[in-house]
Amino acid sequence: MSVVITAFERSPDGGKGLARDTRVRWALEEVGQPYEVRLISFRAMKEPAHLRLQPFGQIPTYEDGDLALFETGAIVLHLAQSHSGLLPEEANARARAIGWMFAALNTVEPPILDLVVAKFDEGDRPWAKERLPLVEDRIRHRLVQLSARLGDADWLDGAFSGGDLMMVSVLLRLRPSGILDEFPGLAAYVVRGEARPAYRRAFAAQWAINAAAPQAS
Amino acid sequence: MSVVITAFERSPDGGKGLARDTRVRWALEEVGQPYEVRLISFRAMKEPAHLRLQPFGQIPTYEDGDLALFETGAIVLHLAQSHSGLLPEEANARARAIGWMFAALNTVEPPILDLVVAKFDEGDRPWAKERLPLVEDRIRHRLVQLSARLGDADWLDGAFSGGDLMMVSVLLRLRPSGILDEFPGLAAYVVRGEARPAYRRAFAAQWAINAAAPQAS
Repeated sequence: MSVVITAFERSPDGGKGLARDTRVRWALEEVGQPYEVRLISFRAMKEPAHLRLQPFGQIPTYEDGDLALFETGAIVLHLAQSHSGLLPEEANARARAIGWMFAALNTVEPPILDLVVAKFDEGDRPWAKERLPLVEDRIRHRLVQLSARLGDADWLDGAFSGGDLMMVSVLLRLRPSGILDEFPGLAAYVVRGEARPAYRRAFAAQWAINAAAPQAS
Repeated sequence: MSVVITAFERSPDGGKGLARDTRVRWALEEVGQPYEVRLISFRAMKEPAHLRLQPFGQIPTYEDGDLALFETGAIVLHLAQSHSGLLPEEANARARAIGWMFAALNTVEPPILDLVVAKFDEGDRPWAKERLPLVEDRIRHRLVQLSARLGDADWLDGAFSGGDLMMVSVLLRLRPSGILDEFPGLAAYVVRGEARPAYRRAFAAQWAINAAAPQAS
């Protein structure tokens, strides 16, 4: 029985790799696990069959035999704890690497997602232009701190880990805004992540689907 | 060597138990581990000594001998994986319970934190009143889905787990807004969480500090 994940039939980003299935694909590639993808439409995501797998109507999901999981962080952590390649062996280093996964998802990503909301969900509201700098400054506040911690290191805590996989994935969302490039150390960190063969395979796999699909107009 | 966590010298909530140290205290109480608390001022949180422990200048942190961790989710998960009491034994059920921890922190909490930002950081902005219903509706959207999944069950997936600990903690933040009470099933779920002896001990411990401290005026 093979691993099956779900992904957008047509990703809203048109193949930029920002949909969360890319994070799971990347993790699967890092640990060397083959997988199949079940593509799902926006309509099907809100239907009972998918809601049984993912109560919030999102992608990705993960199925492996009897196990069904949702939440990208949980899927990546499960892969990292079940296979070698994404977490150090030593117990304390392992706990710290998992800590960076949570930091990426809980401390760094929320203000970045607020930028998506500000630009897309609220972009036509009367306050959009005046509010945007506040949202951007909350992101910069976190990036100053993250950049200080990373310093000159290649990765956040020793060797590349699932924490870096998640942090790079989160920071990638920022590139279109230009804010990432205000932090050259972090921009270089993201480039290091993207250069990993496992990331390249993951990116190419989602691109093959999304570049082939006609985009919703 | 005992576990040491950090907490606010004066919690901004004045002892309502919404600061994140309560989540860690609760987890420590559920797994029966004693702990010490080092109180920290807002000023000290931004100084190098604390930033070495917590690069984003927040509480709580967790120290146990050679291990130093930050991020509430990571600390609670570490406790849950190192002791019994917060995760089922069976591997698949265990992975799913961890999934609910991520769902609480990554899917349910972000729109709830946006409400805090909208009310406190942006409460005096010209758009505050008109924007608030949008922020509240994003929360309701998630609570409709969460409520549907919980149904008539006591807990999210079988017995109480670290996933419930985190979800109850996240939902507690909503109570002052009145939105939680729009979802009687979820409000009752939160009450079940608060009724646990471990939660009561955690709440009382943070209350003893914050009710004793003169609040910043």
